[in-house]
Amino acid sequence: MHVVVVYDTAAERNPQILRTCRLYLHHVQRSVFEGQLSPAQLKRFERAVKDVIDDGYDHVLVYTFPPGAVPQRLAWGITKPEPSDIL
Amino acid sequence: MHVVVVYDTAAERNPQILRTCRLYLHHVQRSVFEGQLSPAQLKRFERAVKDVIDDGYDHVLVYTFPPGAVPQRLAWGITKPEPSDIL
Repeated sequence: MHVVVVYDTAAERNPQILRTCRLYLHHVQRSVFEGQLSPAQLKRFERAVKDVIDDGYDHVLVYTFPPGAVPQRLAWGITKPEPSDIL
Repeated sequence: MHVVVVYDTAAERNPQILRTCRLYLHHVQRSVFEGQLSPAQLKRFERAVKDVIDDGYDHVLVYTFPPGAVPQRLAWGITKPEPSDIL
């Protein structure tokens, strides 16, 4: 399924959460990742993220879409490379 | 249509972009907004955002979903109020 992840974590945990997201997804904006995950991969990703974040401070939003339901993405402002160009 | 907006703007423009997003959408995380917009509202929102951002520095991602295709949203970490509770 298609997954979009946006995180809001304390600065000292940003490198760890960035590394974790990079293992599973493509980097599309400072704290935004996107990609395709199976339900099993999403479970592993969830465990990996929850190992990193502080439940009392950090916040991670995960949008999931059923297969085939990929959202349209508009980008305004400075041109960034396509996700596939970053990884 | 359902819309998710994530912005990455310079600190000095954050209050303006926050204000602009609040006029159209619900605040779900520090720099993430969500809501329902008609195509005409999306056009107005785009103009309002582009009036605020610096094209050479800021970046705004807008995910749009056709009517009925609302993504599932998972929230990990600290509990935040539902979007409808913020506005």
